[in-house]
Amino acid sequence: MLNDCAPAFLARLAAALPEGTLREAEPRHLTEPRGKWQGRPGMVALPRSTAEVSVILRHCHAARVGVVPQGGGTGLVSGQVMAQGPLPLVLSLERMNRLRGIWPGENTLTVEAGMTLQAVQEAAAAVGRLFPLSLASQGTATIGGNLATNAGGTQVLRYGTARELCLGIETVFADGQIMSGLKRLRKDNTGYDIKDLVIGSEGSLGVITAASLRLFPQPDQRLVAVLAIASPAAALRLLRLAEARAGGLVSGFELISRQGFDFMVETGLPGRAPFAEVPDWMVLIELGLPRAMEGEAVLAAIYEEGAEQGLVLDGVIAHSEAQADQLWALRESIPDANRRVGSISSHDVSLPISEIAEFIDTAPARLRQLADIRINCFGHLGDGNLHFNLFPAKGRQRGDYAAEARALSDLVHEMVVAREGSISAEHGIGRLKVGELQRFGDPARLAAMRAVKTALDPFGILNPGAVLPLE
Amino acid sequence: MLNDCAPAFLARLAAALPEGTLREAEPRHLTEPRGKWQGRPGMVALPRSTAEVSVILRHCHAARVGVVPQGGGTGLVSGQVMAQGPLPLVLSLERMNRLRGIWPGENTLTVEAGMTLQAVQEAAAAVGRLFPLSLASQGTATIGGNLATNAGGTQVLRYGTARELCLGIETVFADGQIMSGLKRLRKDNTGYDIKDLVIGSEGSLGVITAASLRLFPQPDQRLVAVLAIASPAAALRLLRLAEARAGGLVSGFELISRQGFDFMVETGLPGRAPFAEVPDWMVLIELGLPRAMEGEAVLAAIYEEGAEQGLVLDGVIAHSEAQADQLWALRESIPDANRRVGSISSHDVSLPISEIAEFIDTAPARLRQLADIRINCFGHLGDGNLHFNLFPAKGRQRGDYAAEARALSDLVHEMVVAREGSISAEHGIGRLKVGELQRFGDPARLAAMRAVKTALDPFGILNPGAVLPLE
Repeated sequence: MLNDCAPAFLARLAAALPEGTLREAEPRHLTEPRGKWQGRPGMVALPRSTAEVSVILRHCHAARVGVVPQGGGTGLVSGQVMAQGPLPLVLSLERMNRLRGIWPGENTLTVEAGMTLQAVQEAAAAVGRLFPLSLASQGTATIGGNLATNAGGTQVLRYGTARELCLGIETVFADGQIMSGLKRLRKDNTGYDIKDLVIGSEGSLGVITAASLRLFPQPDQRLVAVLAIASPAAALRLLRLAEARAGGLVSGFELISRQGFDFMVETGLPGRAPFAEVPDWMVLIELGLPRAMEGEAVLAAIYEEGAEQGLVLDGVIAHSEAQADQLWALRESIPDANRRVGSISSHDVSLPISEIAEFIDTAPARLRQLADIRINCFGHLGDGNLHFNLFPAKGRQRGDYAAEARALSDLVHEMVVAREGSISAEHGIGRLKVGELQRFGDPARLAAMRAVKTALDPFGILNPGAVLPLE
Repeated sequence: MLNDCAPAFLARLAAALPEGTLREAEPRHLTEPRGKWQGRPGMVALPRSTAEVSVILRHCHAARVGVVPQGGGTGLVSGQVMAQGPLPLVLSLERMNRLRGIWPGENTLTVEAGMTLQAVQEAAAAVGRLFPLSLASQGTATIGGNLATNAGGTQVLRYGTARELCLGIETVFADGQIMSGLKRLRKDNTGYDIKDLVIGSEGSLGVITAASLRLFPQPDQRLVAVLAIASPAAALRLLRLAEARAGGLVSGFELISRQGFDFMVETGLPGRAPFAEVPDWMVLIELGLPRAMEGEAVLAAIYEEGAEQGLVLDGVIAHSEAQADQLWALRESIPDANRRVGSISSHDVSLPISEIAEFIDTAPARLRQLADIRINCFGHLGDGNLHFNLFPAKGRQRGDYAAEARALSDLVHEMVVAREGSISAEHGIGRLKVGELQRFGDPARLAAMRAVKTALDPFGILNPGAVLPLE
């Protein structure tokens, strides 16, 4: 059982830390982007070193005080905010944001957890390399948070999720022990994969303080197009065609539905579909090619072959970096439009590729038996990852759906699970989906998760109530 | 404390299983390729289904009887043979070798653990896809064993290790609980990464009974060359050059030393270096390219640019698939030559890329201060993975080095660890390197490993003494 983070404990902890390390938590430490959960006023620890993180956790462990680790606070499942239970200490890594080293010749760098994703990308670019993890919140999100949540984003198709981009981590466990695991090795088969266990544990098994990451050559050319497609099934056939033509160098393959552009019009956002008549379905495709390939010819061949097979109906190809950025900006403005409309419920699901088209075709009718809704289905189609979000019918408000919201959300997840999909593709479990994971998760896997949690954090001080329910 | 796998226990277990599931262990169940360890006569269980694996483990768990899981038995660190301690039951997955499903359109397949790696490759090829994991023992090694040991091999540079090729596993835990985790999803952030924890645990955290694996498009063209290089440092610069020219589509980059070819001559093997005068160092490079690239031109450009920069001294380019296979066969015959000479000690190490050249340059002199030896250093240079093997001086035998063998091996590992390298890049820990891992491993990581082991296998029945020492 945990204790409140009370004044006597804070006084002891403060005495063990440099002055200014413990402060009153600011609003950014107590809120999350969807505004569903609100942290309670309390204290935040702002360590500057791994040794200080160790001191903090050792004290919390001894006093049975919960700790909520935080990066940039951009997570969408309330992993960063604890609204209930004994009052925790917030642990922000924001002051640990140094570049510890960069080795361009080996395509690696080592950074502290509090560095923003964008700063990591810029450090790589400064030596002519690519750090490919890319997501809308990268200016605020930190690499530590990205790893704690195994973030995905738009380049997973080619480069993998945060976990796959990470060679090693430095972690502090619940009892304060520091694991020095910053090896910059592509291969290291020396025992259990503790690194990947902590990555994706959302701060509930260990606090990541630094990471060694993989870098890549920057592609010589980036080709981007938005293609109008016949159907989601056609999009998937087009992806296989594109991968074959481009030798696997497809770095983005994003599904966009007409609904996204309709929402932009409706909410006054400037984005417009790059077609006179907006098609029902589009894909944004990005290729990253070496100069030994004739980029525009490769993209044109994909387009033409796709058109011949009836997959592609129309298309807009970027002829400059600026145009490429504009097409990506259209894709990135969809979440803004969604927020303005206000969703009844949002779903970050993944499906086996062969199940996606049928899911997209049949799910709406089943959901509309429950309520008159609109659906914006978009996302990282190449990864089988859909953001499948439900919205009020035109002229109605999200509040009008209070009675049906839960049933709608449950039905989405049930349809996904029935197709062997995932109820959280890239956002994680946080506190928002703890109940769903308990309901839909494999029992043996949940038992193993609980056993591992108890083994590594016997008093349950690390991010209490995230991923697994409070015991 | 474990009990012997005794007749009364076997009688109870036999009664719970189909007839013929329990048999006398055959020699293949009790030996390992290096002949260093020998299992004791006993029984082997040969289940045909996951349910039967569950029954076996449930009984062993209840009776505190150790289980040694086995695939093809090709591992090089004695993970498959238990020579000491209470007599275990061998659990061979060899009869669970079905293809459960294949989905070419989503680039996945699901297979049982006992299928050989070669059979998995062939199943993928039959639908025009590539399963890229590739290693010398693939005709015997099973995919379950490959996953249990997180096997590497020759295509890691582009496609990753066994872990990275696996989307999901079905596992039986020590108490018989079955985790049904065969999801064919590229992204699934629903809690702790139990899959990757079991992968690479060498059968000591769970028995993998089936796996869902990633497939890839088959490259349109394969380009292979053996290049004489100025030095290991030059090879690494050449690799970065090749990656830039080929857009990252370098699928093999193997270091070969003159010593390997000298051993072939010495031991009467037919392989000869493809150069009139054998250079000190060579690399085998393989590119897998789409037809939109002019393969021979790309390879020629890498060669010429490398030559201009003084990295490449000479080269032999394969002009047919048969020639490409011949060059690979040369590389693959090095371990045969090594076996015939007979090593004093073998080392499967990895190093940060920026440390490799200096290691290769300076380690021999330090080792030769201890004894007059020959060194064959070769391997997966692109991954930072060297097979760094020590051999007797000409005219001497491995037995002559009994006094120095341990000190030589220790010094190799000390030099690797001092450079933040790994003492086991791809072979694993097994029983052979348990002591080394305890000596060189990070204490906090070792503590976490022990805690996880105890949490998931409280009586220690799964592969006792592998990875971690018997308690």
